[in-house]
Amino acid sequence: MSEGVEWALHTCLNLAWAAADQSISATRLAAFYELPAPYLNKQLQSLVRAGILTSTPGPRGGFRLARPIERVTLMDVVAAIEGPGEAFRCTEIRSRGPGAAPESDNKPPCAIDQAMRRAELAWRRELAAQTLADVQEQVLRSAPDAPERTRRWLAD
Amino acid sequence: MSEGVEWALHTCLNLAWAAADQSISATRLAAFYELPAPYLNKQLQSLVRAGILTSTPGPRGGFRLARPIERVTLMDVVAAIEGPGEAFRCTEIRSRGPGAAPESDNKPPCAIDQAMRRAELAWRRELAAQTLADVQEQVLRSAPDAPERTRRWLAD
Repeated sequence: MSEGVEWALHTCLNLAWAAADQSISATRLAAFYELPAPYLNKQLQSLVRAGILTSTPGPRGGFRLARPIERVTLMDVVAAIEGPGEAFRCTEIRSRGPGAAPESDNKPPCAIDQAMRRAELAWRRELAAQTLADVQEQVLRSAPDAPERTRRWLAD
Repeated sequence: MSEGVEWALHTCLNLAWAAADQSISATRLAAFYELPAPYLNKQLQSLVRAGILTSTPGPRGGFRLARPIERVTLMDVVAAIEGPGEAFRCTEIRSRGPGAAPESDNKPPCAIDQAMRRAELAWRRELAAQTLADVQEQVLRSAPDAPERTRRWLAD
């Protein structure tokens, strides 16, 4: 999984702590973690395309959350950054070479593909069950000053 | 996930269908699915290092299963090919930049890392719960002639 997922998740939490009507530039968001702004900008654009962020153009523009983080799951963010595809991609090698089963309209599904999908489904289900609000709640428990520190720095 | 996982899983099933004492070369195993032998060989060496296969050197050498497939889980094969690391790697960006929490010996774990790990654990648990024997059983139900076809071709 690309490091963009970590960047995107942390940045969404920061945006949740910013003032509600504040748009924040990619440069500013990147500086918060000393990330390369052009790369973070790429992830932010992906989040916009996925409907998680909105972006406002112009010199005072930037990014903010498109909806409350209670309605953004970890799965939403991972899918926005990594794409919606499966991690295990069956390329149907069983249909190639001398071992190939006879062609049939009614080919049974590949047992390996199905087994791998079962595991991936468990992963997706778990990601979909956790919202950014759940994560935020946990951060608040261990670092109660994080929102105020973040908000102050982003507002500067 | 690399396509090597699909190759490795299918090839392990084929080895399970080969005669018990038969070592099969990477070239032969690759030809079964028209795969590039040097690349498949790399995956087979990884499976040897993980204790899933054994290899015998020499002109009549090759690969065979090191233990019954009842004791090889999908997780074993995935870890052998992809490495034991987590798919989501926390690089602790929260400790960088102006937003960094004050250094402390007692730093609370990163809530995002923990949430991502929970999902990955669900995936690993599912992969660890399925053995190659389970997958084989399913193949047998949908393609009862697969073992005989495979055995015959590999024995040629």
